[in-house]
Amino acid sequence: MAEQIAREAHLASTVLKTLSDEERSNALHEIYDGLLQAKEDILKANLLDLQLATEQNLSPSLIKRLDLSKSDKFDSMLQGIKDVAALSNPIGKINLATQLDEGLNLYRVTCPVGVLLIIFESRPEVIANITALAIKSGNAAILKGGKESLNTFKILAKIVNTVLSNKTKVPKNSIQLISSRSQVSDLLDQDKYIDLVIPRGSNDLVRYIKSNTKIPVLGHADGICSIYIDQYADVEKSVKIVVDAKINYPAGCNAVESVLIHKDLLNSQLIPLANALIENKVTLHVTPEIKSFLIQNNTDLNYIKDANIDEDFSKEFLSLDIAIKSIDSLEDAIYHINTHSSKHTDAIITENESAANKFLGGIDSAGVYWNCSTRFADGFRYGFGTEVGISTNKIHARGPVGLEGLVCYQYQLRGNGHIVSDYIGSGGKKLFVHKQLDLDFI
Amino acid sequence: MAEQIAREAHLASTVLKTLSDEERSNALHEIYDGLLQAKEDILKANLLDLQLATEQNLSPSLIKRLDLSKSDKFDSMLQGIKDVAALSNPIGKINLATQLDEGLNLYRVTCPVGVLLIIFESRPEVIANITALAIKSGNAAILKGGKESLNTFKILAKIVNTVLSNKTKVPKNSIQLISSRSQVSDLLDQDKYIDLVIPRGSNDLVRYIKSNTKIPVLGHADGICSIYIDQYADVEKSVKIVVDAKINYPAGCNAVESVLIHKDLLNSQLIPLANALIENKVTLHVTPEIKSFLIQNNTDLNYIKDANIDEDFSKEFLSLDIAIKSIDSLEDAIYHINTHSSKHTDAIITENESAANKFLGGIDSAGVYWNCSTRFADGFRYGFGTEVGISTNKIHARGPVGLEGLVCYQYQLRGNGHIVSDYIGSGGKKLFVHKQLDLDFI
Repeated sequence: MAEQIAREAHLASTVLKTLSDEERSNALHEIYDGLLQAKEDILKANLLDLQLATEQNLSPSLIKRLDLSKSDKFDSMLQGIKDVAALSNPIGKINLATQLDEGLNLYRVTCPVGVLLIIFESRPEVIANITALAIKSGNAAILKGGKESLNTFKILAKIVNTVLSNKTKVPKNSIQLISSRSQVSDLLDQDKYIDLVIPRGSNDLVRYIKSNTKIPVLGHADGICSIYIDQYADVEKSVKIVVDAKINYPAGCNAVESVLIHKDLLNSQLIPLANALIENKVTLHVTPEIKSFLIQNNTDLNYIKDANIDEDFSKEFLSLDIAIKSIDSLEDAIYHINTHSSKHTDAIITENESAANKFLGGIDSAGVYWNCSTRFADGFRYGFGTEVGISTNKIHARGPVGLEGLVCYQYQLRGNGHIVSDYIGSGGKKLFVHKQLDLDFI
Repeated sequence: MAEQIAREAHLASTVLKTLSDEERSNALHEIYDGLLQAKEDILKANLLDLQLATEQNLSPSLIKRLDLSKSDKFDSMLQGIKDVAALSNPIGKINLATQLDEGLNLYRVTCPVGVLLIIFESRPEVIANITALAIKSGNAAILKGGKESLNTFKILAKIVNTVLSNKTKVPKNSIQLISSRSQVSDLLDQDKYIDLVIPRGSNDLVRYIKSNTKIPVLGHADGICSIYIDQYADVEKSVKIVVDAKINYPAGCNAVESVLIHKDLLNSQLIPLANALIENKVTLHVTPEIKSFLIQNNTDLNYIKDANIDEDFSKEFLSLDIAIKSIDSLEDAIYHINTHSSKHTDAIITENESAANKFLGGIDSAGVYWNCSTRFADGFRYGFGTEVGISTNKIHARGPVGLEGLVCYQYQLRGNGHIVSDYIGSGGKKLFVHKQLDLDFI
């Protein structure tokens, strides 16, 4: 069953990738119209999910995420489809062109990755978002939603499938929506047909998927972001940035979890920083040298905890908690972060440009920031329009990933009967020309 | 032990990535000098490996690969190091720059992947090649060679390590050479520290590695390349290209393994093609309709075998064997190849441009060729100078991979106290500017 789903997605992907951008974008407009017409029915199904969730005493935050009727969520879900349709075509772009010889030209052309498996939890609007991104980038997608949104999921799936079959050139198996949980582990085995898994949900979900598949996974399990307050930091910026990075949205993967403060700044910067955090009800998990300093300065001890040195600096609190330690030097800060970070986003606060450059060059994370909040790590803020997810991988796509993360390339070689045995090194005498062609004139 | 090696490589990589291109290239020149001075000792150690290999009756082709003294192999190994040093710096290139707001600029900057684990079999010159590529691209590397080249490996390792420690800024753990086979499986578990595995050797080696690690693997297990002879093919090109793609180097991963011939061409093209292949001692594994045609035309039956339909079209013969079947249409050819190919390189022969474009657009492989031999799939022929390997992955790097495959990117965000809570969507009122900056003026 899972193999069939995956194989059909693969075959659909090879047709989908041959459609024009206009054909793919038109399909998005048709989906938009279909969902708009069915708004009432969708919200009815969504209400059923909400009632079941309430009966089952699911958490208020989950119920909030589930609710499509809240404020302008439905409309912005639909608008998102149109926004994706309006993006420039990511497929078929030539980014390298080389004449190998007379009449033999090599082109590197962007193409879809192939088949995406997207596993998400409660947010039903992800269906519309991912369907749009997948079709726009010419990828087939298999979507698996959470059981909490089953009724919403089913009606959205039905509309998307009907629209694709009846009104578009997109093969119907390009978007397959599955709801049975048991199929997930079987799908994770289909590395022959599925090219990329994108989990959208809790750390536990991502960690489970990363440990249970050979298919590349695009995403992040943890966002352990650190801020290093350098010897030459401006106190006002330190306080403002750390507070923002912690309290703006503590559950965000780009929230700060650890602060490393240069040892010379305990007098000048630690106390204003600690007070500002405590004013915002942040609990500080501190090392002994920090604690003794806080005690001397009469800080409110209700918000001070002893840090567990093995755990608290390798932990995503996802709450109003932060770990703080002092550090001897910029080099030690780089070492600490490269050893403890989850490769998401790390920042330095300093007025010294050469210290900043050393930090930005030495840190091994997707985002390396100078004098700004780690919370900027986000596709919308980066100007990518829409976001597939945030990747802490070291290859392919890192940080906030837009449409580009769903694209790779193929080499097209166009000849006229050329064979290698005519060329030097393979038995012949001809030489390669290797002339770069001007991309603007292709 | 494996964990320590991997952790030290990771830490070295974070220093190596901060060195300038000049410092990294200078290290390559020092290695060049060191190896040149030790040429006599290296060839002595290599002779010992050759003697042991001969005593153990290892295959002539393996012994040939082992031999560093043969013709200009040693010199071209050394020249390769200089060639890599002379390549343009792949690190620190800005390929996206966006002003997010006044004083807040985002840059996407190329950076090394991190730590490479390279596992190779008998060719000792790979050590010099990979060491050069790794250092040039700012990556640390752990190299594991085959036991057949142990003595050569040891002396090369000693020289590289001594040179790096005494004469360069490259941290000594940037290049670690290990010879114990038992460490490989432990190293394959170090996904916390190792970012990319590059196997260079037999299909079995690659397959073993792909099945035994969660670290991304760059390479290919199989090269099952197909050529489709379209209805509008020119017979002279068909014969010339298929013969070249099969016989120029049958053990190459880019050699053709299957030919799909349009059903209308059995009269005009099958017989000249079959005869040309048979003249070159190629055995044809054919389907019944092809066989009956060959019998009618008195083809030499010593070179004809019945194809095993389940196996022979999904097989890398690596020998003077080829599978041939007739096919009804271009669509069927695309379907067959997308179902059976290993995503390496596939070609169409046709004089019809729209058929060619349909094929190039529809085939899901790293290389898609029109009217030329699949044997062109090679880093040297593509003009990449030097090749890390050929990748059949669907993400990151595909086809022949040059230095670019060892590079990814980081986002640098440079601000001046910027926090997200000032911006719309996160509690504030400021709007993002999202102005693309001209890359030529950064």
